[in-house]
Amino acid sequence: MQQERCSSSDRPLDPRCMLARDAEGSEDRFGRAAVDFPVAVVLPAGGSGERMGLPTPKQFCTILNRPLISYTIQAFERLSWIGTVVVVVAKENHDLMLNIVQKFNHTKVKVVHGGTTRHRSIFNGLQAFSNTTDSLTPKPKVVIIHDAVRPFVEEDLLLKITLAAKEQGASGTIRPLVSTVIATTSEGYLDHSLERAKYRASEMPQGFLYDIIFQAYQRCSEFDFEFGTECLHLALQYCSTNAKLIEGPPTLWKVTYKRDLAAAEAIIKETLSMSACIIAGSEAEAVELAKTLQKNLNMIETDVISCAKESNTEYLSKTQNFIYISMSGSNFSGVLEMVKCFKDLGHARLYPVVIVWVQLNMTKQSVDSQKTDELTAFMGLASEVIQGNVLLYGIEIDHSKVPEQWERSVERLTQMTVALIRERNAALTGQLLHA
Amino acid sequence: MQQERCSSSDRPLDPRCMLARDAEGSEDRFGRAAVDFPVAVVLPAGGSGERMGLPTPKQFCTILNRPLISYTIQAFERLSWIGTVVVVVAKENHDLMLNIVQKFNHTKVKVVHGGTTRHRSIFNGLQAFSNTTDSLTPKPKVVIIHDAVRPFVEEDLLLKITLAAKEQGASGTIRPLVSTVIATTSEGYLDHSLERAKYRASEMPQGFLYDIIFQAYQRCSEFDFEFGTECLHLALQYCSTNAKLIEGPPTLWKVTYKRDLAAAEAIIKETLSMSACIIAGSEAEAVELAKTLQKNLNMIETDVISCAKESNTEYLSKTQNFIYISMSGSNFSGVLEMVKCFKDLGHARLYPVVIVWVQLNMTKQSVDSQKTDELTAFMGLASEVIQGNVLLYGIEIDHSKVPEQWERSVERLTQMTVALIRERNAALTGQLLHA
Repeated sequence: MQQERCSSSDRPLDPRCMLARDAEGSEDRFGRAAVDFPVAVVLPAGGSGERMGLPTPKQFCTILNRPLISYTIQAFERLSWIGTVVVVVAKENHDLMLNIVQKFNHTKVKVVHGGTTRHRSIFNGLQAFSNTTDSLTPKPKVVIIHDAVRPFVEEDLLLKITLAAKEQGASGTIRPLVSTVIATTSEGYLDHSLERAKYRASEMPQGFLYDIIFQAYQRCSEFDFEFGTECLHLALQYCSTNAKLIEGPPTLWKVTYKRDLAAAEAIIKETLSMSACIIAGSEAEAVELAKTLQKNLNMIETDVISCAKESNTEYLSKTQNFIYISMSGSNFSGVLEMVKCFKDLGHARLYPVVIVWVQLNMTKQSVDSQKTDELTAFMGLASEVIQGNVLLYGIEIDHSKVPEQWERSVERLTQMTVALIRERNAALTGQLLHA
Repeated sequence: MQQERCSSSDRPLDPRCMLARDAEGSEDRFGRAAVDFPVAVVLPAGGSGERMGLPTPKQFCTILNRPLISYTIQAFERLSWIGTVVVVVAKENHDLMLNIVQKFNHTKVKVVHGGTTRHRSIFNGLQAFSNTTDSLTPKPKVVIIHDAVRPFVEEDLLLKITLAAKEQGASGTIRPLVSTVIATTSEGYLDHSLERAKYRASEMPQGFLYDIIFQAYQRCSEFDFEFGTECLHLALQYCSTNAKLIEGPPTLWKVTYKRDLAAAEAIIKETLSMSACIIAGSEAEAVELAKTLQKNLNMIETDVISCAKESNTEYLSKTQNFIYISMSGSNFSGVLEMVKCFKDLGHARLYPVVIVWVQLNMTKQSVDSQKTDELTAFMGLASEVIQGNVLLYGIEIDHSKVPEQWERSVERLTQMTVALIRERNAALTGQLLHA
């Protein structure tokens, strides 16, 4: 029997930190002074996937076209106080990993080969720092060991783990037990159940003084390498270092099953859908529609601006969703300009951007061949910009002087906009929907 | 540190069993003779959600417009050898629960009020059977206790739990530990880690001879009612009944966090998207397109039939996805007929059905006002049938004699069809997309 637990906080507390390339204000909030020593990361990602029954090991499964491990790397890379991230992969995945590093522009990663067990892989990762001639991997004071398949680790916890490791020599993350733990008899019967309050689940990340964990691995036995389960245990056994345990948030959960990939995707999509920018131009009807839409989209935090060019490139590069309202006749030239801005930004987009082009028709036009040409051009543009990770959708809305009819249309427009932003479905780009 | 585990099997092994109202062939496969005694279920669902930080307790959160608890009830209700399902809810959720029972046509459910703790709620549930004057809840030989938030429990495990409970007096489901379990010192340091091989996580369902578990609850202390964690433990302590432990599949996982709702939704959607029926009429071009589509949709098991009326109503009621191909000019009268069939079926649909109407245009028509009227009618039909849980989408495809162009269009058609079937997005019904 399990206790109910808080279920709302399984997403990073500050979603924007997941999106930004660099953690904003971390130096202000925590003070760089707090971490005035070198910190590095070892990320064992050696699983070959053979035992998982999936063609791809989980850490290389993609969410929104990006491998899970890239999200995890980014969680460390964006922190200015963290240096090298050593990623340990099976030999057969070495090239794949290098491609990921290049494609998603990871700048702090060093890829090394894994061993036959997780402990051997971690030891290989640690050894990368013992080669003093490699300037890319100077020996750190503290090393954080984490799982490649726990992408939502937050700065706050990493900082606590790092400082505790500096002070105590070792630190580990714990969580309350999800299930009652029972001891079984050899015949498969209940022997006894553990008193839950006294036990905890040991999770990742863990932190160590580099010298301690490296020594522990140098001293440990072949049996430990083969069957050991806990780095914390090695530090205790071989260096008499008793780890400080820190309670972690539910966001630490490990992507284990296929369903966890769906859960991770939902968290990422939800985070990407938290805010949007509405671009409305200057015509009264468009501005009014923008305001109504802003009111209706109450789940999403929205800004209304009049022109994409007004906003600076930093704003453009930080916004994940745009709703571009134009009047009929003006076609999508404004969208084209915006897309050009993205191209000029030049850097690889880590997340797909959504642009919903809303065309407000003031008169019931007879649909003509010009319209068909426009649709063809729009589909062409959408299939072009998707290469740059921009998802472009269109929604037509006919203005109506009948209030109920207009309200119904705007309501449909709202629902479709929310659906397009939330789902980020690549197969539906270039479509012109009708509200 | 955790071991990798098989990650592909976190979905019910036989997805069709989730879909069918009655488990097919269970009497043949397992033999009714195996369970020739009365079996009932107690489903504690008393959580008020206060501690979850969500406005709705998880068991009442909806997936595809249906509360989670209805999926769990269905998992039991479809088994002919299971009798009454006693659902224990907090007093304030009594009416909500009765509405769910009525709306989703649950026929075996009895709703009773919960207590202040989970153990009190289970005891309340068990007491429902001790009232011998209530013919709806005759005293069962074996009672299964399960969680309302574990919707994917399968017949195979329920049968094992039931038979073991009959034989041994008590039975429980176990799973390997996901994380290393550690004991902590009172100062928050690592004390020792448990040897993982000796321990298991205790999960649900659990089974008991009714007389044993009822007696255990009658004998147990106020302390047990308030702080106890394990029904198995009560049976051991108060009736000296040592539970037989049975290893369960990963599908047993409990919906605990918001992300688990997303995972459950993904599993249900994936299960609903495993097969489709393509209706192609008799015209050569439509039949050819149907065949190409069938080949392209290789992830989905498809049947091609020529006419919806041909198929019997049982087939219609068991199929979750239809792709209806019609030639331009014939408009969507065939879809209308099909929708009428669904209406005639009459029963409440437990899952939304998707109909993708594919309109094959043989000539590049100039789009005229007649077209606009057709679109309006189609949107009207879609918003009507969605009331009956039918999601209707349209995709136009222009025939082309240029092979590459035609292939591209069919590829787009395939991708959009897959996206519509997989997402089951209500906000996009009534749209006419263009391949």
